[in-house]
Amino acid sequence: MTSAPAPSFNPGKGIGSPVGIALLGYGTVGSEVMRLMTEYADELEHRIGGPLEVRGVAVSDKSKPRPGVPDELLTDDAFSLVKRDDVDIVVEVIGGIDYPRKVVLAALKAGKSVVTANKALVAAHAAELADAADEANVDLYFEAAVAAAIPVVGPLRRSLAGDQIQSVMGIVNGTTNFILDAMDSSGAGYDESLAEATRLGYAEADPTADVEGHDAASKAAILASLAFHTRVTSDDVYCEGITNISAEDIRAAKQADHTIKLLAICEKITDSNGETAISVGVHPTLIPRSHPLAAVNKSFNAIFVEAEAAGRLMFYGNGAGGAPTASAVLGDVVGAARNKVHGGRAPGESTYANLPIADYGETPTRYHVDMEVEDRVGVLADLAQLFADRGISLRTIRQEESGEGARLIVVTHQARENALAATVEALKDNPAVKSINSVIRLERG
Amino acid sequence: MTSAPAPSFNPGKGIGSPVGIALLGYGTVGSEVMRLMTEYADELEHRIGGPLEVRGVAVSDKSKPRPGVPDELLTDDAFSLVKRDDVDIVVEVIGGIDYPRKVVLAALKAGKSVVTANKALVAAHAAELADAADEANVDLYFEAAVAAAIPVVGPLRRSLAGDQIQSVMGIVNGTTNFILDAMDSSGAGYDESLAEATRLGYAEADPTADVEGHDAASKAAILASLAFHTRVTSDDVYCEGITNISAEDIRAAKQADHTIKLLAICEKITDSNGETAISVGVHPTLIPRSHPLAAVNKSFNAIFVEAEAAGRLMFYGNGAGGAPTASAVLGDVVGAARNKVHGGRAPGESTYANLPIADYGETPTRYHVDMEVEDRVGVLADLAQLFADRGISLRTIRQEESGEGARLIVVTHQARENALAATVEALKDNPAVKSINSVIRLERG
Repeated sequence: MTSAPAPSFNPGKGIGSPVGIALLGYGTVGSEVMRLMTEYADELEHRIGGPLEVRGVAVSDKSKPRPGVPDELLTDDAFSLVKRDDVDIVVEVIGGIDYPRKVVLAALKAGKSVVTANKALVAAHAAELADAADEANVDLYFEAAVAAAIPVVGPLRRSLAGDQIQSVMGIVNGTTNFILDAMDSSGAGYDESLAEATRLGYAEADPTADVEGHDAASKAAILASLAFHTRVTSDDVYCEGITNISAEDIRAAKQADHTIKLLAICEKITDSNGETAISVGVHPTLIPRSHPLAAVNKSFNAIFVEAEAAGRLMFYGNGAGGAPTASAVLGDVVGAARNKVHGGRAPGESTYANLPIADYGETPTRYHVDMEVEDRVGVLADLAQLFADRGISLRTIRQEESGEGARLIVVTHQARENALAATVEALKDNPAVKSINSVIRLERG
Repeated sequence: MTSAPAPSFNPGKGIGSPVGIALLGYGTVGSEVMRLMTEYADELEHRIGGPLEVRGVAVSDKSKPRPGVPDELLTDDAFSLVKRDDVDIVVEVIGGIDYPRKVVLAALKAGKSVVTANKALVAAHAAELADAADEANVDLYFEAAVAAAIPVVGPLRRSLAGDQIQSVMGIVNGTTNFILDAMDSSGAGYDESLAEATRLGYAEADPTADVEGHDAASKAAILASLAFHTRVTSDDVYCEGITNISAEDIRAAKQADHTIKLLAICEKITDSNGETAISVGVHPTLIPRSHPLAAVNKSFNAIFVEAEAAGRLMFYGNGAGGAPTASAVLGDVVGAARNKVHGGRAPGESTYANLPIADYGETPTRYHVDMEVEDRVGVLADLAQLFADRGISLRTIRQEESGEGARLIVVTHQARENALAATVEALKDNPAVKSINSVIRLERG
């Protein structure tokens, strides 16, 4: 099939040639994509202007039963499949980085459009993939890579293309949100809540990528690239997970009418040289209970966007799971297929702004520091001086009795991350500070 | 400029020919569109792949000062402007129906793509406009017509194009949401809250179109068309405004941990003949405070979508105002301009499903009936029988003392609208019922 300039684009009124699909991977997402393509074949044909026809399904082990796939479609040779002349669109739902990178590059080089749900791949190799797509003049779609069914890649690339985005802040990992929400509603500790998440299927056997924030960091890199028209990779993202969040942190947050969420925060900042730069980080964050993101519970995801003209927008929904991810994948397949039938290309990578990535120390933030201190005259003044020395003013101070000493909870006004971190180091070295219970950032606002 | 098949689509890497813009209307939205096009000309040029050039601004009165528009661009002859050879895209932000309809049709017939923010026009004449756009093979964009800056037209047309939408439910009118929210938080009555909305600029001098639900009905028609691939016009929408909502209704809702919102509800239903049909209505609706839409306060809008694979999604943001509307308009301008520079067309009208529009009496819903009744033996049994006669079962019944009689609040289980409405008529005719205080539908779920 060739991508011809279309004389008329009129879905449902005239049906064009079939669009050949190669499906790579047949796990939770792949099998749902297959089910939806089969069950709603007529609907999809009308929406595209031509039928989708699956040419092959590549799996690593052909001998495993694959319900929903006719035997003759199964192959363990993904490289041959993606190069077939009757394949127009390659759908990659394998996971991992190195192997899918090779297959996707082979597909793009063979002139096939690619739809991928692979956040790690896109966050690590967006530039290489985009260049290959440009060279072959084909589409590269990845809506499902960020927050599954929640439309956010499309809105950032298209709906908000006339606006200036100032920040994107999101709950983009369902596992950690489930854990933090469970801690918040039950008062349980981290280990207990993780165990519950695992038992209920919200956390994987090895939860590292989720709880350490790596999964959210991949999504943050993709969101920042789209929002700021700059290449941002997962290596550019400051990343801190939720493993140190204690039941006591959650309790203290509650007392102050706040909650703790793992946020991916992408924003334009002015660095200490007065230059505009991009700051991208993932870390536990205290947010007021009145903030729209505070109400995002269970394993739901939400993306909060601030733009100059649009103001504040929020996108909310299922950020993971087979069916929600397949919904986003199929939306992309319909887009790529429409372009094959009717001509045209989706907006590709946009990197013209090419803004510098700020060192995370340059990021303006606020700290919530919870510590055990000696209970004697002059301690508060001494410790407050450590903040003042670095130009940091304090917003609230709360002191409580705690055993033989005192517990001191300090919330700062906004300052740069490196000044705040240096102050915490100075606090640790101060003999009046017995221990630092926790340091958590607050959403600036 | 001709719309050529592009050899390479690479925004920001190569700059193409200019794209000529005709701006029709220079009110709150038009002037913001102009400001953003001027202020961010470089950004937009990179994102499109060519510069936007405003060829003319059509206004009804050329003598009025129009800050931001060079004199030589002003014209009062919109019809000549839209036909100019150097105009590629026509932006309609005039408002009204008859006059913009004529100009937009003239523009489409002259081969210009059109971006409009005009919900009334699109809801009344979508078919005629879409046919004209198809015939000329140009784009018709109207993201700003529903909920301004909130991306919803794009997500329904593209991101969710692989999914099956079951319902779309939204707060799509900021004026009525402001009034209902004010009533909810202050306990004030309707008139007082409307007066406050007018004073603060959230309601127009003549608020009829908002408070009677007509504005929401236009948006409901557009949403239903997109969600169900069927032509739905504002005439197909059942419409009931908020003018009868009393402080007492709000108080009673609060007591039951509910709130009242004016919702546009579009859903696929099974009618009494067992056929799938579309039900579209706008009416005040009781929703539990735990529902995501309950937290949408002030003049904010939100659209709640349920789809088979994606599950529940919500889109939230500013649903009105100059800048948010201009954001959506410019997003569409960028889309149409990309197509002019690089070739291709946006997905057009999709009406293949062509589902019947159900009579609103067929809609399954639930009623909350608040009435004054006589306080004597047997009344409750008699009245309950009126529901039972029509096959309606009751979910909750609350009886309170009220003067010499009793106040009875009944919440039904789900039944068809016409059975519920007939029951209310029978209640009115029953001598034991002194008055019906209010009848409000509950969100089914």
